[in-house]
Amino acid sequence: DSNLKIFTLNSNPALAQEIAEIVGVDLGKSSVTRFSDGEIQINIEESIRGCDVYIIQSTSGPVNEHLMELLIMIDALKRASAKTINLVIPYYGYARQDRKARAREPITAKLVANLIETAGSTRVITLDLHAPQIQGFFDIPIDHLMGVPILGEYFLGKKLDDIVIVSPDHGGVTRARKLADKLKAPIAIIDKRRPRPNVVEVMNIVGNIEGKTAILIDDIIDTAGTITLAANALVENGAKEVYACCTHPVLSGPAIERIQNSKIKELVVTNSIALPEEKRIDKLVELSVAPLIGEAIIRVHEKQSVSLLFD
Amino acid sequence: DSNLKIFTLNSNPALAQEIAEIVGVDLGKSSVTRFSDGEIQINIEESIRGCDVYIIQSTSGPVNEHLMELLIMIDALKRASAKTINLVIPYYGYARQDRKARAREPITAKLVANLIETAGSTRVITLDLHAPQIQGFFDIPIDHLMGVPILGEYFLGKKLDDIVIVSPDHGGVTRARKLADKLKAPIAIIDKRRPRPNVVEVMNIVGNIEGKTAILIDDIIDTAGTITLAANALVENGAKEVYACCTHPVLSGPAIERIQNSKIKELVVTNSIALPEEKRIDKLVELSVAPLIGEAIIRVHEKQSVSLLFD
Ligand SMILES: Nc1ncnc2c1ncn2[C@@H]1O[C@H](COP(=O)(O)O)[C@@H](O)[C@H]1O
Ligand SMILES: Nc1ncnc2c1ncn2[C@@H]1O[C@H](COP(=O)(O)O)[C@@H](O)[C@H]1O
Repeated sequence: DSNLKIFTLNSNPALAQEIAEIVGVDLGKSSVTRFSDGEIQINIEESIRGCDVYIIQSTSGPVNEHLMELLIMIDALKRASAKTINLVIPYYGYARQDRKARAREPITAKLVANLIETAGSTRVITLDLHAPQIQGFFDIPIDHLMGVPILGEYFLGKKLDDIVIVSPDHGGVTRARKLADKLKAPIAIIDKRRPRPNVVEVMNIVGNIEGKTAILIDDIIDTAGTITLAANALVENGAKEVYACCTHPVLSGPAIERIQNSKIKELVVTNSIALPEEKRIDKLVELSVAPLIGEAIIRVHEKQSVSLLFD
Repeated sequence: DSNLKIFTLNSNPALAQEIAEIVGVDLGKSSVTRFSDGEIQINIEESIRGCDVYIIQSTSGPVNEHLMELLIMIDALKRASAKTINLVIPYYGYARQDRKARAREPITAKLVANLIETAGSTRVITLDLHAPQIQGFFDIPIDHLMGVPILGEYFLGKKLDDIVIVSPDHGGVTRARKLADKLKAPIAIIDKRRPRPNVVEVMNIVGNIEGKTAILIDDIIDTAGTITLAANALVENGAKEVYACCTHPVLSGPAIERIQNSKIKELVVTNSIALPEEKRIDKLVELSVAPLIGEAIIRVHEKQSVSLLFD
């Protein structure tokens, strides 16, 4: 369909290429560079007049650069008479700033939603928002895809025996439950508690992990503090071995070193965030979200339901 | 007036401090830092409920970082019940992307205006926009201050003899005329022309510069290509000596080296953009816009006309 155009920006061109192949189109011709002073320069090198345009861009780090690339691209496409401007944001940055946890905090996840709409986007397709409520920050249609089925398929293929799915905190229990359903496994929860202020946290494990293969699951692994402490606590408390998985490998600061030095046997992630070479350690397995996103784009474009993709 | 608060972000804290002193208030307590993954973290550490808040931030390089700091700060102030949110943007980045010069270009200067309004700003105070039309990109009040009087005062103080004010291109003639009025001097124009495509440009000088002290003026000096070629052409054509001045010293890429190696005797700039130590070469003179901006803030706050500041 020559009315469907897919453009990439700089956050994840390899994923965009994969998606374009699945959808069966060439990537749109464009360049996103910098002027001498660091300002973003965008050139769209083919007509997109009247087209349904999909932009593939995660707002992963450097988040402000990637977000501004996205906003400026939307502006350029709007002024070039695109019919629809559909954003594919596999990793939605600033999602953790989704509420005022303290006085006078910004709600940057909502600000970003407003900026995207102001620039002129007509639809968002995204994956595993840190909180599903962020969908409500948008007044345009949003399709919210799930990484759990992809992670689940991988672990099904490994045919592991006697597994338990572990949530590293209370907030992630729903996600752990979904993976457990897929793998027909029980769940456990790491129940962190600080007995008194300024006293070290106690890692209490709720559920039976003794002698089992534990699979830790989270949406984002950032500095990897939570997940590596959880993995080590599981092994200390009798787990046979520990896998970890997440949709979004932010892996900032000490993350890689912590994972290397932890009891985690294998870390399974998706390519929602492009990983530089130095983060591709032996323990790390990367699964592609391109088939899922490609299918979603095809369905959106053919006006079919996307919700069928959720299992 | 305890209802007036001035906050700084990271682009130009020294200028913000100077402005706060002129206005007679302490800078608001806040911190703008980064989470481990590079996302911006803002803490406003005092109540601003019901206050008229002024944020001092140039969207100079790193432009996308500085712009996002500004937008997130506006969001935080809005949610913390500020009465008005007044942006002081001494240097407005992306101003050169103010029109579609080629097909399918963004108009980022307009996008930025929309983003600022969407975030919740109620007023903008800025200085020497690259094109005055950018004022019309805003639907909120904008006060547009001028750098020429500050540059003019400086050159008046030098008591130079037999001067001519030179515009380095056609676009800057109005600005040169303003400086010339202030210094009671004639003007000249560098009239660049490309005789045929792919042939080197000819630097033709319109106006009399023979034996005179030339003062080149521009709004922005970025890579300094234009201004240094102009300076050298002036000397080759008989100018006695050449000064250069501008409001906004972007000075990216080869700028400093070019200025060092050029015939420019002295480069006079303002502190609308904070200069790192390595750009503070001996030839460079920096004038402060703090008195101008401080006065503008006082007048806005006291509901007086700001237009009196324009001469
Ligand atoms: N990029 C970030 N890195 C670390 N913490 C963050 C980040 N963004 C927001 N936060 C904080 O994380 C908290 C929300 O995390 P959560 O409880 O997991 O939803 C908020 O209170 C934020 O202050
Ligand atoms: N940051 C920048 N650095 C250099 N050139 C730019 C920048 N932003 C926009 N431009 C280009 O500069 C031209 C406008 O400059 P001017 O003719 O001086 O108004 C536009 O055609 C833009 O493509």
